[in-house]
Amino acid sequence: MRLSRYFLPVMKETPSDAQIVSHQLMLRAGLVRQTAAGIYAWLPLGLKVLKRIERIVREEQDRAGAVELLMPTLQSADLWRQSGRYDAYGPEMLRIRDRHDRDMLYGPTNEEMVTALFRDGARSYRDLPRILYHIQWKFRDEVRPRFGVMRGREFLMKDAYSFDLDEAGLKASYEAMFVAYLRTFARLGLTAVPVKAPTGPIGGDLSHEFHILADTGESALFYDAAIEDISRDELLAADASTIARLTGLYAMEEEEHSKVADCPVPAERLRTRRGIEVGHIFAFGTKYSASMGLSVQTREGAQVHPQMGSYGIGVSRLMGALIEANHDDKGIVWPDAVAPFQVGLVNMRVDDGNVTSAADEIYGRLREAGVETLYDDRDERGGAKFATMDLIGLPWQLIVGPKGLERGVVELKRRSGGEREELSIESALARLTS
Amino acid sequence: MRLSRYFLPVMKETPSDAQIVSHQLMLRAGLVRQTAAGIYAWLPLGLKVLKRIERIVREEQDRAGAVELLMPTLQSADLWRQSGRYDAYGPEMLRIRDRHDRDMLYGPTNEEMVTALFRDGARSYRDLPRILYHIQWKFRDEVRPRFGVMRGREFLMKDAYSFDLDEAGLKASYEAMFVAYLRTFARLGLTAVPVKAPTGPIGGDLSHEFHILADTGESALFYDAAIEDISRDELLAADASTIARLTGLYAMEEEEHSKVADCPVPAERLRTRRGIEVGHIFAFGTKYSASMGLSVQTREGAQVHPQMGSYGIGVSRLMGALIEANHDDKGIVWPDAVAPFQVGLVNMRVDDGNVTSAADEIYGRLREAGVETLYDDRDERGGAKFATMDLIGLPWQLIVGPKGLERGVVELKRRSGGEREELSIESALARLTS
Repeated sequence: MRLSRYFLPVMKETPSDAQIVSHQLMLRAGLVRQTAAGIYAWLPLGLKVLKRIERIVREEQDRAGAVELLMPTLQSADLWRQSGRYDAYGPEMLRIRDRHDRDMLYGPTNEEMVTALFRDGARSYRDLPRILYHIQWKFRDEVRPRFGVMRGREFLMKDAYSFDLDEAGLKASYEAMFVAYLRTFARLGLTAVPVKAPTGPIGGDLSHEFHILADTGESALFYDAAIEDISRDELLAADASTIARLTGLYAMEEEEHSKVADCPVPAERLRTRRGIEVGHIFAFGTKYSASMGLSVQTREGAQVHPQMGSYGIGVSRLMGALIEANHDDKGIVWPDAVAPFQVGLVNMRVDDGNVTSAADEIYGRLREAGVETLYDDRDERGGAKFATMDLIGLPWQLIVGPKGLERGVVELKRRSGGEREELSIESALARLTS
Repeated sequence: MRLSRYFLPVMKETPSDAQIVSHQLMLRAGLVRQTAAGIYAWLPLGLKVLKRIERIVREEQDRAGAVELLMPTLQSADLWRQSGRYDAYGPEMLRIRDRHDRDMLYGPTNEEMVTALFRDGARSYRDLPRILYHIQWKFRDEVRPRFGVMRGREFLMKDAYSFDLDEAGLKASYEAMFVAYLRTFARLGLTAVPVKAPTGPIGGDLSHEFHILADTGESALFYDAAIEDISRDELLAADASTIARLTGLYAMEEEEHSKVADCPVPAERLRTRRGIEVGHIFAFGTKYSASMGLSVQTREGAQVHPQMGSYGIGVSRLMGALIEANHDDKGIVWPDAVAPFQVGLVNMRVDDGNVTSAADEIYGRLREAGVETLYDDRDERGGAKFATMDLIGLPWQLIVGPKGLERGVVELKRRSGGEREELSIESALARLTS
């Protein structure tokens, strides 16, 4: 993509209304703009990152055998009256009345709707087990939206729902989603701590939250340092024994931790850090299947209410968490897995025919090789171009200038460590396309 | 995908509440389910088709140089007060009040928001021309939603917005989008008739609607038969001269046609058919840039309001239009370009070890070759499996049964023409993977 034809409104100054670094950087790097309190437009660069996160989340859901569908954003209040949650849900539910005075709402979650769809489509044990998921915009009318996309009102969530014949099946589905979550966060390069959670209004008796460690997290965690010793490779190869090991290690939110009389973790192994909740899984059994009349026939001919669970990941919130975990004083440092472009190509002198023809050719060859490249072909000073590249945090910068070209070299810079290297155009291309 | 692990609730009977064939087939083939009046959940098979349509639309927008972003579904009423449309828009606008009693709305379109984003991000002639687009759910509170996704309330729309320095630039952007539309519909295998349209509440003086010819269309069209003579290849290679030729041919909606005293088309060349509006483009000039205070500096230092246009495609409606144009009495006949899977693999005898191991192996090899395959591995009668395959309309059916295997053959059926052929497994695989 040529920057001269893109839409990347960066800001030099830190916006005064943004308190945390991810929010500041998302505004400055032209990833998002607030359009109303807690509601954001995703500008082209931000949308690209959002799609990359979404893709990793989707791939891991598919790998776990979950099947994707898409439920609408608006729901009928009647559906929520069937489960009894319409009146129970607080002011965070955005209630709407349509032109025929029917009560509607903007879905904050989808237990009711997916239960109704499954009730309509499943008849017998042959239709189970199933895990259905979607990735859709949700709305929660936070009283004080803040921290940018971390606690926005309209947000993108992946929510999955499992249907099993019995509790053993539910446990297997819960573990399959647990594994998917460990792999998802590991692929994103994030350290996620699973914390046993109270089940709250969704109900049930087994629930875990997944927290990303970050200084600006909203909750304080107390956990066994051994959790940090589990390697990325182990998480990518996670199975039931990994879950047993992880959930066997102490991890509590401050409020729960403060109630524990005898913390089982020796002081030298007890860590405390702040965390950002990016995932939450629940096994709630028959709460919705029973209240909403979903039953299926067993192999033996009996009718049972399926055992259900639900499994959420805050997809848009993950972008904030990723920036909290990956930035320096110059800007964002995207991990390769979610970077909007892999390479930022900088033409230092647009008005110099040699430089421009060399940069154009490099751009063409990177595109041919399928390397996603943002090509800064604007008529701007080099300093401004460097600052923009550091701010938006693409993994590689390739700088083409007149002095280097005279010597037959270009400069390749790695954003994360800042290492710079001069090398021939062919060597640079070989490095970036290998 | 193994059908035994999928979620495909097909219906044998035609639902009584569905009046047109696309709506009936979308329900029967398990593509969608209505969750409230005019609001649909996209079941797994339907979502796959929706994504394929979306992808073709996106590729053609990108090819035309448009840049993708994503605006939120909910908007602030204040934004619409700036353009004066908040009070002007009728009851189709879903008005919402949040917990702080702020007036919000579910976006039916995005002229105001994109103008505000561009006002915030563009400064000078260097930032123009630009075309920004998004593919997002919209809501129009139709008084009588009907025809399934053809006239639903929550629907998926691609809307693009162009910003140019002058009218010549606007004309070029309008033509680039016109070409993108011709290519999009041609790739979908649909015959689209561009009809000069009144501009209505969006304003401006140049506008075209694109109608797909279908007996169940809501509007009657009168047009020059020469429009149908333009080949798919010509449309795929469309440029300004194609547009000039097409728009030079007579095409009117009935209401406008009835006002024409002297129809310029000789009777033997005048065709009348019904059409489904799937796209609408507008050049409206400075209506929003002027009312919302968007201006940029010209090369000469003056301030001008950019010339704007907007360009919509009904992505979810297109699925209905595609089915109207591609079905027979047994079900849907998906064109290859949008089929949810390319191949339906039918195991005729799940309880026969030879049949199942042959079918399993074929499934594995199709997957390895990247051929998207829906594998009916359920313990069901052959007749039910055939009926399901015909109903859901995958381009190819590959049938593996005990009698054929004894002779070393499987059966390959093309859904569109119904041709059947017996051939060896290797030949069948070669045909499907070539």
